[in-house]
Amino acid sequence: MFESAKFEHRLDKAAFKALEPSLREDLLNAQFQLIDQKRRSLIVLIHGPDGAGKGAVLNRLYGWLDVRKLQTLTFDMPCATEDRPPMWKYWRELPPFGQVGIMLGSWYHAPLCKRALGQSGRAAFSSMLDEIQRFEAMLHAEGVSLLKIWLYLDPQEARRRLNALSKGAYQRPVVREWAELESAHARERLDVATEEAARATSTEFSPWHVVPAADGDYRDAMAGSLLLEKLRAMAQEPEPAPQPLPPNPTRVPGALPPFSILSTLDLSKRLPDADYARELEWEQSRITRLTNTSAFDRAGLVIAFEGSDAAGKSSTIMRLRQALDPRRFRVHAIAAPTDEERARPYLWRFWRHVPQHGRTVIFDRSWYGRVLVERVEGLCGPDDWGRAYGEINDFEAHLRRAGYVVAKFWLAISQAEQARRFEERETIAYKRFKLTPEDWRNREKWPLYEAAVTEMVDRTSTRSAPWTLVEAEDKHFARVKVLRTIADSLEEALG
Amino acid sequence: MFESAKFEHRLDKAAFKALEPSLREDLLNAQFQLIDQKRRSLIVLIHGPDGAGKGAVLNRLYGWLDVRKLQTLTFDMPCATEDRPPMWKYWRELPPFGQVGIMLGSWYHAPLCKRALGQSGRAAFSSMLDEIQRFEAMLHAEGVSLLKIWLYLDPQEARRRLNALSKGAYQRPVVREWAELESAHARERLDVATEEAARATSTEFSPWHVVPAADGDYRDAMAGSLLLEKLRAMAQEPEPAPQPLPPNPTRVPGALPPFSILSTLDLSKRLPDADYARELEWEQSRITRLTNTSAFDRAGLVIAFEGSDAAGKSSTIMRLRQALDPRRFRVHAIAAPTDEERARPYLWRFWRHVPQHGRTVIFDRSWYGRVLVERVEGLCGPDDWGRAYGEINDFEAHLRRAGYVVAKFWLAISQAEQARRFEERETIAYKRFKLTPEDWRNREKWPLYEAAVTEMVDRTSTRSAPWTLVEAEDKHFARVKVLRTIADSLEEALG
Repeated sequence: MFESAKFEHRLDKAAFKALEPSLREDLLNAQFQLIDQKRRSLIVLIHGPDGAGKGAVLNRLYGWLDVRKLQTLTFDMPCATEDRPPMWKYWRELPPFGQVGIMLGSWYHAPLCKRALGQSGRAAFSSMLDEIQRFEAMLHAEGVSLLKIWLYLDPQEARRRLNALSKGAYQRPVVREWAELESAHARERLDVATEEAARATSTEFSPWHVVPAADGDYRDAMAGSLLLEKLRAMAQEPEPAPQPLPPNPTRVPGALPPFSILSTLDLSKRLPDADYARELEWEQSRITRLTNTSAFDRAGLVIAFEGSDAAGKSSTIMRLRQALDPRRFRVHAIAAPTDEERARPYLWRFWRHVPQHGRTVIFDRSWYGRVLVERVEGLCGPDDWGRAYGEINDFEAHLRRAGYVVAKFWLAISQAEQARRFEERETIAYKRFKLTPEDWRNREKWPLYEAAVTEMVDRTSTRSAPWTLVEAEDKHFARVKVLRTIADSLEEALG
Repeated sequence: MFESAKFEHRLDKAAFKALEPSLREDLLNAQFQLIDQKRRSLIVLIHGPDGAGKGAVLNRLYGWLDVRKLQTLTFDMPCATEDRPPMWKYWRELPPFGQVGIMLGSWYHAPLCKRALGQSGRAAFSSMLDEIQRFEAMLHAEGVSLLKIWLYLDPQEARRRLNALSKGAYQRPVVREWAELESAHARERLDVATEEAARATSTEFSPWHVVPAADGDYRDAMAGSLLLEKLRAMAQEPEPAPQPLPPNPTRVPGALPPFSILSTLDLSKRLPDADYARELEWEQSRITRLTNTSAFDRAGLVIAFEGSDAAGKSSTIMRLRQALDPRRFRVHAIAAPTDEERARPYLWRFWRHVPQHGRTVIFDRSWYGRVLVERVEGLCGPDDWGRAYGEINDFEAHLRRAGYVVAKFWLAISQAEQARRFEERETIAYKRFKLTPEDWRNREKWPLYEAAVTEMVDRTSTRSAPWTLVEAEDKHFARVKVLRTIADSLEEALG
């Protein structure tokens, strides 16, 4: 990976001076296209050994670009972020479309450090790289381009410069990304790990670029040229074509009838009134107790509610609410995205609500909107919802690995019961607001939703974050089943 | 304050049952007006002794309102928030216009606790209440209404209920807001402090409402009625009239000519080229050193840059950037607000960027936009910018008190120099983007800006957060003066 960078690369002062004005102008023009199009954002990752000039490149790019649409994205592990999944801090900082972010200390930092310190084995390291690659593919597909720059400097030269910096007459800020790696052995391992990482994560849409950093002017001019090339390529990407509405499925003669996982549910399940209050109170009490343990303070709870209209999501959430300390949970009802949300990848608006450890967050409709309503209504294309299953599995895996319990419920009722509840809503004054003409219209798409739910459950019900399909024809039965499932999951996870 | 609440207030089950459906319907209708108008938000503060049913009222309101536009705002001092000014966490949670937030543990909590524990004297307590009153007046003026409810329960009865709750067969979540106040003496002092606080902060636009809480149905029905009344009053508030553009000031014959504080500056100040590099490097080095001290980790730095177009803000910020560790500062260029920002009080978009302790944030244009461009261009009315001076002083006082160094710079150039720089921008390719036709037009308003700057400096240059007017005709002089001022302020503050 670094073979050619080891040779000498220089740019003399005069050549640099001659090149700079036009590079600067071209960069600005390209950046303005990005700003005007507002279709994508760009993150420039700058890595390299301490002493190679990461901060210097950053400052140079600040001198060249329009700083009003430029952000520095940096991370140094304050307590505020580390009580959430490690990826949360990167999600939080994603710049909106139209902007450029320059990132020091990216998601490569922790895997490389761990590997260099011998804290993760070969297989674990390789699986972290796979994960990064999937993450970057998601970013790319969702409108975030990446330019990945590795500054190469001979290790001995890097150390010499670092020492010189701290001994000069004037104090200079130094970005010490690898300060933990003090031993020569660790630094050697870092080199090996870096090469592996750079090869494994060099995809067609975001390869690593190795920039020889011995000569500052050469280094900066090359970083600037790479940036220009990237910005221009982004401007030339065709605008995504509008998505056609999916056709109503027509039965192919002789084909097998479509299978609906919801058809397997026994909707006649009932909970006798006599048992309801006691069982509800019991399950609530279990949840109260389990979320007050010290084990829960290191975990957390993320719950997604989905289901047909009028299936009883709100009233179930109400029963759950009664079991939780109001200071330690939030409910987010998912509606139309805000413009800050629209200007970032789809999952951003869920990541931003991921709670600290020890907290609960309940989503009334969730990230599954992508493979349900957005799929059925054609709000996104087959490419988008098609890749969403994997992205969602990754999202939930991040939560699970950080210790959160993830519970997902589909509340199922029959079409007849839904009609009955809609009619009830029309007659009871304080329920009227819950019904819109759209709700009636949506009923026509019932088979499409059944197909979408079936595929969703098949593809996203994982061992660590399983779907629970809830027979919700009887509200009492449904509420107790949901609460019991949550209590059971907590019990199992907290041990 | 609690006199009449000490008498018995009851509502029998039948009366409550009779009342509930229409209350619920009225509440929903009123809430939908709030949602549709999207002009204001409402925060319901629920306080009272532990055991009085704060959580129960919250849950009841959740049962009555449309939960999709309802948020719980609660605070229990996680590490994430307390490394910022205490008010930051309340700002962060402000619901957008159109929504209702129910708050447990508001900005009254800390002052009352401190007073009850004898940690703050009479004068300090009283000044905290003044501050709260100003804060609430600002919220009201900026579109956030408050409904402040104090649940009254006889202290002995409250303790009895609390004990019963924790001894029941089923575990119940209990909101223990005053757990720190264990001694009878402290609880006694809390009562006294509460009465004083409730009287002092009962303003015409947001009085405290004392709700007798001995009978749960009465309590909830009264809370619901107060909420209904408030929502209806909000819906009837007239829409703010559009603001007329301020007229160009005409000279009153015989009147004194307007004074401009900028006219006092000696714009001929120069820094010899020979000294520039050395002095710049020296001041940068001081800033690097001071922001790397452990004292700075408990402080922080907030810098606002204002000035005429082309006065050199960006290039000055660039020199500051070179002195700072890129991982520990951010620059925010203030442009048009996003819709999430527009749906909240003006200062929200600055509060959200207040850094953690030990960090620096630089605003390229700032909260002073309200009394500069918004005033001059008529983007807000005289009432709005007229009260902004006080609100800004309060904002900066919060920062200062939390240990942050606040530095504010006005970069001043002459009209002739500005014209020269505009022309230069037109000819140098990579500077062209910095100039718009609007910039030329703005020059016509120069006298209006001079008047606005003069009033701004007079009214917001405080001892702890003074304005520095910078003679910026010579860029080198200006940069060194700015950096020296910052270094001096840091040195003084960090001791």
